[in-house]
Amino acid sequence: MTTFAHFPQVDHGDAAGELEATYDDIRLTLRVPWVAFACRVLATFPAFLPLAWRRSAGAFGTRYAEQAADELRERSLLGVEPALDLRERLRSAGWDDDRVDTVRRVLNELNYGNPKYLLLLTAWSERFQMRAAGGAQVPDDLRAAVPKGHPEGMDPLLPLVDPEQASVQLQTLLKRVADIHYHHGPASDFRVLAHWPDLLESVTDEILAPVVRTEGYDAKARELVVRARELAQGLPEPVGVERTELASACTPAELAGLTGVLFMYQRFIADITISIVHVTECLDGPAAASRSHFPVPEPS
Amino acid sequence: MTTFAHFPQVDHGDAAGELEATYDDIRLTLRVPWVAFACRVLATFPAFLPLAWRRSAGAFGTRYAEQAADELRERSLLGVEPALDLRERLRSAGWDDDRVDTVRRVLNELNYGNPKYLLLLTAWSERFQMRAAGGAQVPDDLRAAVPKGHPEGMDPLLPLVDPEQASVQLQTLLKRVADIHYHHGPASDFRVLAHWPDLLESVTDEILAPVVRTEGYDAKARELVVRARELAQGLPEPVGVERTELASACTPAELAGLTGVLFMYQRFIADITISIVHVTECLDGPAAASRSHFPVPEPS
Repeated sequence: MTTFAHFPQVDHGDAAGELEATYDDIRLTLRVPWVAFACRVLATFPAFLPLAWRRSAGAFGTRYAEQAADELRERSLLGVEPALDLRERLRSAGWDDDRVDTVRRVLNELNYGNPKYLLLLTAWSERFQMRAAGGAQVPDDLRAAVPKGHPEGMDPLLPLVDPEQASVQLQTLLKRVADIHYHHGPASDFRVLAHWPDLLESVTDEILAPVVRTEGYDAKARELVVRARELAQGLPEPVGVERTELASACTPAELAGLTGVLFMYQRFIADITISIVHVTECLDGPAAASRSHFPVPEPS
Repeated sequence: MTTFAHFPQVDHGDAAGELEATYDDIRLTLRVPWVAFACRVLATFPAFLPLAWRRSAGAFGTRYAEQAADELRERSLLGVEPALDLRERLRSAGWDDDRVDTVRRVLNELNYGNPKYLLLLTAWSERFQMRAAGGAQVPDDLRAAVPKGHPEGMDPLLPLVDPEQASVQLQTLLKRVADIHYHHGPASDFRVLAHWPDLLESVTDEILAPVVRTEGYDAKARELVVRARELAQGLPEPVGVERTELASACTPAELAGLTGVLFMYQRFIADITISIVHVTECLDGPAAASRSHFPVPEPS
């Protein structure tokens, strides 16, 4: 059961002390049910994550960040005809409505969080490369804080399948879905969908394989990265950490490595944002796939 | 003079022992006059570079690799009208023919090496992510070795300007040319061109700023990355190192960091390949910019 090549990271259950508090605060502030793969890998560099998050929590708990994520989500539709009617496929495989509803809720939660993490990693990558991220003039209504904590109806913590404990067949499938993206490991999203291996297989081979890394997909990923950069610059407060600030706390390899990891995940999350919106489009159509199902209540 | 934010790396003159031998062998095998920024940064991870290079020297010293680099170079033309007649600009700034010839030779050398490094970093990134890189069936004539050592007329080692020792004005210019690419630091190529600050200024602000990171530029970079992946798979021998092989030699952060650094430089070098071909096009036109000026002699 250990053919799967582990990627270094600190999983939810293994975070302790300051790191556990950081993980919890990320989930509660972003109002999402998981800590991104990116953050779990960044946690292997002790000096970075708690500091970077402390400097970002304020800006990411605002209506500005919520709206920016909404815009990135809306932009994520590929505009290609879904290759599969996923609802029909699940019904004919004997899925009842409750099970379909569970998958729908999970997909909506993932789509809610992915563009937030895209914005966060973009800001962190830019700042670590010694460019501005945040600190813009923002109207007061967008500076306002959103309520902290998970919205009603959202899972507080999605369980991720551990690939190293999975069957060889499921390990192979998780490697395949990462490889078709040219990724270094499976996104959290696929580790969640791995609870339903037959679903993940259709998602991988019938829905994603035909579109991932096509010219149109890559053009969309590029659009998201470019727009996320602009939106990150517009955050109401400066966020993240400059590389030079960690010069004494990190080895040269760690400083270079952090630069690379941040750069890589900015693009990784853009891909996953597109891919999971596309999967959801196959289930519920483009409008449901690209809107927030957990809108922040308007101030009274 | 130290406002410039140093990026961790081991420069040519600081490499010693096994690392120095690796640097020398990279230059002589690839027949290029510098060790790429990517390699100098990878040198900060002690376990990686000498091993990865030992496993790659054979495949990269073949006619297959030479031809693959030629193809990537030919594909690197942007197809946009040069914004500046660089030859005319240098003449009217009082440059004599000798000085223009020196810059021409340097540009041709950089264009010769960049697509080779793109192929190398692509292969290393893919293999580190546990995917195949090389080991394909290749006809004997392409498996044949190219002569080791620098071609006639090539500088053996291009001197790179040290940004930390440069004037504040030149530091600002080097940061600007990196920032317009959204890069973490200036490519070796720009550190070479920095010997002629007025040239680098025209290159940055008049030639590159109008095209870098446009849709067409990013589409071209994507084309190079996709094609480099295919060409890397076709190398006559397996190259590089799998992440799991370094599990005991590296910390988790180093393993994650290497993954990110390799991923980042694959894209970084695709950008630089395009940018320097475009600069050369402004000097000598598209045909001269996109062909090898150091072709391997045909076997007799």
